Amino acid sequence: MTKADWIAVDWGTSTLRAWAMGRDGTVLAEATSDQGMGGLPPGPDSFEAALLALVSPWLTRGAVTEVLACGMVGSRQGWVEAGYRRVPTAALAAEALTPARTHDPRLKVHVLSGISQHNPWDVMRGEETQIAGLLAAQPKFEGVVALPGTHTKWVQILDGEVFHFASFMTGELFALLSNHSVLRHSVDAKGFAKDSFIAAVEDTLSRPERVAAQIFGLRAEHLLKGEDPVIAASRLSGLLLGLELAGAKPYWLGQPIALVASGQHATCYSTALEVVGASFEVFNPDDCVLSGLRAARLHAHAPKGTT
Amino acid sequence: MTKADWIAVDWGTSTLRAWAMGRDGTVLAEATSDQGMGGLPPGPDSFEAALLALVSPWLTRGAVTEVLACGMVGSRQGWVEAGYRRVPTAALAAEALTPARTHDPRLKVHVLSGISQHNPWDVMRGEETQIAGLLAAQPKFEGVVALPGTHTKWVQILDGEVFHFASFMTGELFALLSNHSVLRHSVDAKGFAKDSFIAAVEDTLSRPERVAAQIFGLRAEHLLKGEDPVIAASRLSGLLLGLELAGAKPYWLGQPIALVASGQHATCYSTALEVVGASFEVFNPDDCVLSGLRAARLHAHAPKGTT
Repeated sequence: MTKADWIAVDWGTSTLRAWAMGRDGTVLAEATSDQGMGGLPPGPDSFEAALLALVSPWLTRGAVTEVLACGMVGSRQGWVEAGYRRVPTAALAAEALTPARTHDPRLKVHVLSGISQHNPWDVMRGEETQIAGLLAAQPKFEGVVALPGTHTKWVQILDGEVFHFASFMTGELFALLSNHSVLRHSVDAKGFAKDSFIAAVEDTLSRPERVAAQIFGLRAEHLLKGEDPVIAASRLSGLLLGLELAGAKPYWLGQPIALVASGQHATCYSTALEVVGASFEVFNPDDCVLSGLRAARLHAHAPKGTT
Repeated sequence: MTKADWIAVDWGTSTLRAWAMGRDGTVLAEATSDQGMGGLPPGPDSFEAALLALVSPWLTRGAVTEVLACGMVGSRQGWVEAGYRRVPTAALAAEALTPARTHDPRLKVHVLSGISQHNPWDVMRGEETQIAGLLAAQPKFEGVVALPGTHTKWVQILDGEVFHFASFMTGELFALLSNHSVLRHSVDAKGFAKDSFIAAVEDTLSRPERVAAQIFGLRAEHLLKGEDPVIAASRLSGLLLGLELAGAKPYWLGQPIALVASGQHATCYSTALEVVGASFEVFNPDDCVLSGLRAARLHAHAPKGTT
């Protein structure tokens, strides 16, 4: 039976992921459930129960196992509100760890804080841990980290700190339009039509102001000429990503980019970044979050005054 | 008891409206139900039943009452597919009337066709009747008709015909973002903060490419400083409308505009058009659709070869 030295947790809105970690930082086991923050009843007890349901096999009777958790679990509706540290700030710091109360004496839980920005207003929660992981592997990285997702982040790293960032609602807009709008019968995201995607990126990159008309055009094209829904979905994705790249230009223009993405996100963002001729390297999001949680564990155990 | 000489019907996705018309074109009675096309089971019988539920008191036993209907009732999922006429085309024409089959011998139903465009792809259905009504009242109108809605239309009128148009998904984006996105807890559309709206229109009018970041900023501002949801809703509306005006500039710049809108749509679009210094006049949508259906009735009864 796997017993964890400590447990790493990435707890988002829709998914809870946990890793049983060995003393040397290796992964001994991992588990995932759909008990994301969004589906849990409010209050700390439901979070403790959801965590125990996933990790209790890894706990040792009579011992305390430390848990380090990042993501929406630290939001106001989460297990404990872990607040935000304001830019410019390190991706990770000892003061970023907020203890969460537990009933089970085998658990000692800390939740990582997010990062905020006041001009313009912005927040991240979870991505700071991926950035910390990236910087743990590449301490001299200077440039921009792009983290595609529901609310994609573009993050300027300067002197090893999060200096400035911008969130774009691209992923959520794609989901809303694909699933809940008049387009829902015209798009099918089960495929990737690369040429159509690229043409659409170029459309909104050069004419971002036309995006709301271009999106309706997908519906009209389906009605009038029965356009293939896979092509329409790729074009929708491209239109929204071209719009984002137009807005994020100060971030990607002439800077080295670390693209933290896998799967379809990696495909779309890589393709789009090639369209604009940006130079980028792809990093795996799971590796980054795990490295970030490992770094957080070091912070948690560093002697006072050294972090 | 009101008996109709004929019946005018505006049948959209969410609402069915009917007017009992007198021989001289006056409105004798009106009725509304929530049996819009979107809520009806497929097939012509459900449309006939929904119509009869609303208008049967106006019918005369042993006589045939003519019904003229516009809107989504003419779509592929409607009562009968009334097709599209392609631009440039008159807002209304005798060939625009498609008969719908009925079981009740008291009914004789005609459905009006929509209008299509192939470059870029676009469609309208229902708005053409409002435009026909506007042109019936102002036969010499030359300029642009703006018809705010779920899919706002900007329509160039030339020589009394629909010459070119563009649809913007602004209304649907506002509804999706307000009701189904992460913003749903941060916005409350029960009010209108004019200054915030105007500032947001100016934001995306000058920097349309930032819209997806600006929208996420509303969420961040709510989290970090507890922004008033009424102000956030007005800003969301302004951001989307500024984006639309940036894209629709070829339509409103230097042209007389007929704004077919009432209520909140009229408030928002009037305010935004004042921001850009456009010259416009407001027309009531119900008056326009009724005038358009009256014009369609004249077409239906004109001697052949004269329309």
